[in-house]
Amino acid sequence: MAVNKRIGKQTLMLPSAPTICGYASVAGQKEGEGPLKNCFDLVSEDSYFGEPSWEKAEMKMLRQCFSLACEKAKLSPTALDAVFSGDLLNQCVSSAFSQKDSGIPYLGLYGACSTMAEALGLAALLIDGGYARRTAAVTGSHFCSAERQYRFPLEYGGQRPPTAQWTVTGAGAVLLQNGGAGAKVTHVTFGRIVDAGIKDQNHMGAAMAPAAFDTLRAHFADTGRTPRDYDAIFTGDLGALGHDILQKLFADEGVTLDCLYMDCGVLIYDRTTQQVNAGGSGCGCSASVLGGHILRAMENGVFNRILFAATGALMSPLTSQQGDSIPGVCHAIAIENGGAM
Amino acid sequence: MAVNKRIGKQTLMLPSAPTICGYASVAGQKEGEGPLKNCFDLVSEDSYFGEPSWEKAEMKMLRQCFSLACEKAKLSPTALDAVFSGDLLNQCVSSAFSQKDSGIPYLGLYGACSTMAEALGLAALLIDGGYARRTAAVTGSHFCSAERQYRFPLEYGGQRPPTAQWTVTGAGAVLLQNGGAGAKVTHVTFGRIVDAGIKDQNHMGAAMAPAAFDTLRAHFADTGRTPRDYDAIFTGDLGALGHDILQKLFADEGVTLDCLYMDCGVLIYDRTTQQVNAGGSGCGCSASVLGGHILRAMENGVFNRILFAATGALMSPLTSQQGDSIPGVCHAIAIENGGAM
Repeated sequence: MAVNKRIGKQTLMLPSAPTICGYASVAGQKEGEGPLKNCFDLVSEDSYFGEPSWEKAEMKMLRQCFSLACEKAKLSPTALDAVFSGDLLNQCVSSAFSQKDSGIPYLGLYGACSTMAEALGLAALLIDGGYARRTAAVTGSHFCSAERQYRFPLEYGGQRPPTAQWTVTGAGAVLLQNGGAGAKVTHVTFGRIVDAGIKDQNHMGAAMAPAAFDTLRAHFADTGRTPRDYDAIFTGDLGALGHDILQKLFADEGVTLDCLYMDCGVLIYDRTTQQVNAGGSGCGCSASVLGGHILRAMENGVFNRILFAATGALMSPLTSQQGDSIPGVCHAIAIENGGAM
Repeated sequence: MAVNKRIGKQTLMLPSAPTICGYASVAGQKEGEGPLKNCFDLVSEDSYFGEPSWEKAEMKMLRQCFSLACEKAKLSPTALDAVFSGDLLNQCVSSAFSQKDSGIPYLGLYGACSTMAEALGLAALLIDGGYARRTAAVTGSHFCSAERQYRFPLEYGGQRPPTAQWTVTGAGAVLLQNGGAGAKVTHVTFGRIVDAGIKDQNHMGAAMAPAAFDTLRAHFADTGRTPRDYDAIFTGDLGALGHDILQKLFADEGVTLDCLYMDCGVLIYDRTTQQVNAGGSGCGCSASVLGGHILRAMENGVFNRILFAATGALMSPLTSQQGDSIPGVCHAIAIENGGAM
């Protein structure tokens, strides 16, 4: 087999353009009170989703989201050949436990908050390569489980600096198939790790923006496209500050992103009233915005070609305790209506 | 693109059979005193690998192993189009930090101790599908970092029951390319999660054996092969007890695995003298045995066709604290000398 689906340095072209045949999003109470409240398929009334712990709530949320995507696609989970899933909990247990009874071959990922793009890219490649008929990409995060794992017990009431972000309680699921009607995945640009030397755990936007810059720049160079070839470009969870840093990095190279560039972490909350400081973050941020707002907008023809660039911070509390910096990564997925590339 | 590379229910056929163009293994002191001591490319004299913490030692070990594989293959890391890596540390930081300066598109995985097979399978698909020229699969684990994260501080001197296993300090790296001389990846069977209801954190072999059974059975059914079509079948880290359970599960269906079936966790230590109870475990167990013993034996013609079935327990200390069972997963990779399938 010749290497015939690679263009430029990092971008993979998917000639068959796998179709998004189903998608869903589930959100927590706070997210359900934000600007995107009408985009989610399901909003929980509290942080427990009817479960006895926040971790079990997160597992339930992922399960619900995956089930909703299957229902909306009118597919039985058994019709899927593989599911790619990952999350922020130690050992990615919310993904594993949410899929443990599905009977679908399971590929666990850890891409931090970039997981939705990594999962979507690999899920699309499996179809385009002729290895699967239908695949799924699922991820999510939960504010309360993340907060106590990464930072402090919630009861402690720790103060948050203005650069801090708020982990989204939310999940997204996307189902892909070979052919049929729906938006299509046309290009995948898997990113390199970029370490800008940022050590402030409360400034993830600054840690991840250079990785987003690196991957988006590679995507444009590889494809010969410019930002204006997209109706919208979404980063995952850079927040308001990371959003500005990314624009500045491009501006320094003479490239204007303008108002076609948005960040899921900025879109999901009303920063003036919801006290989320720099905005949303977490695997569930980009996943719920993709499975809620973005794919609905594509279905309604608001956008016809978008670039989804989820961003991740590859750190742990332990690496920060040991004085390490916070490397970032970003994977970009081009999605468009219609079949033409 | 038609779905033309799938046989049966779960098995993917790789018509181009990507070639293993390089491999390496690194091991800790204890592993370097075991039966496979002459198979590792590098054995550390202590548990620190010259670093100030065990976690940094684990990062260094992965970096060393990856570099050794590149050196042995006479390849610059920049010749690689993608690296798949994961580990057991929270948020998979040893993988991410070991690759943060490599400049290679990075796909983080979490497959627990099945990571080497998951990584190898996806790395091979990227080449077979025409998306990459060269890819890498890297993983490892460290006894001391795992012990303090999953169980107790080492200083505590916790007692270990006979069913417990010993996390291998070791790493493995495998490089793949399109064409050329070397062993080839011909089939990939990604596994489903199987939850046998085991809750004993000190009996991982029992938790994972049913998943190994499920995946191997699917592999044989899909391919029409029997165990005897392989010169050797390796599970990842079932240990002595899981090894027996798997044989029993097959025997109950009238299938004899016999002496062609081995477990990397049994092979890597001398259980009579090394005080490892049921044997080795961890991502580094199957990875270092693959990158040390197995691929060397294939290169020397001892084995010509093997099945590598790494096994993982999808749990965390938190799920066990919350009373959950320990689901298992297993991915199987068929590797053979020569090009014919």
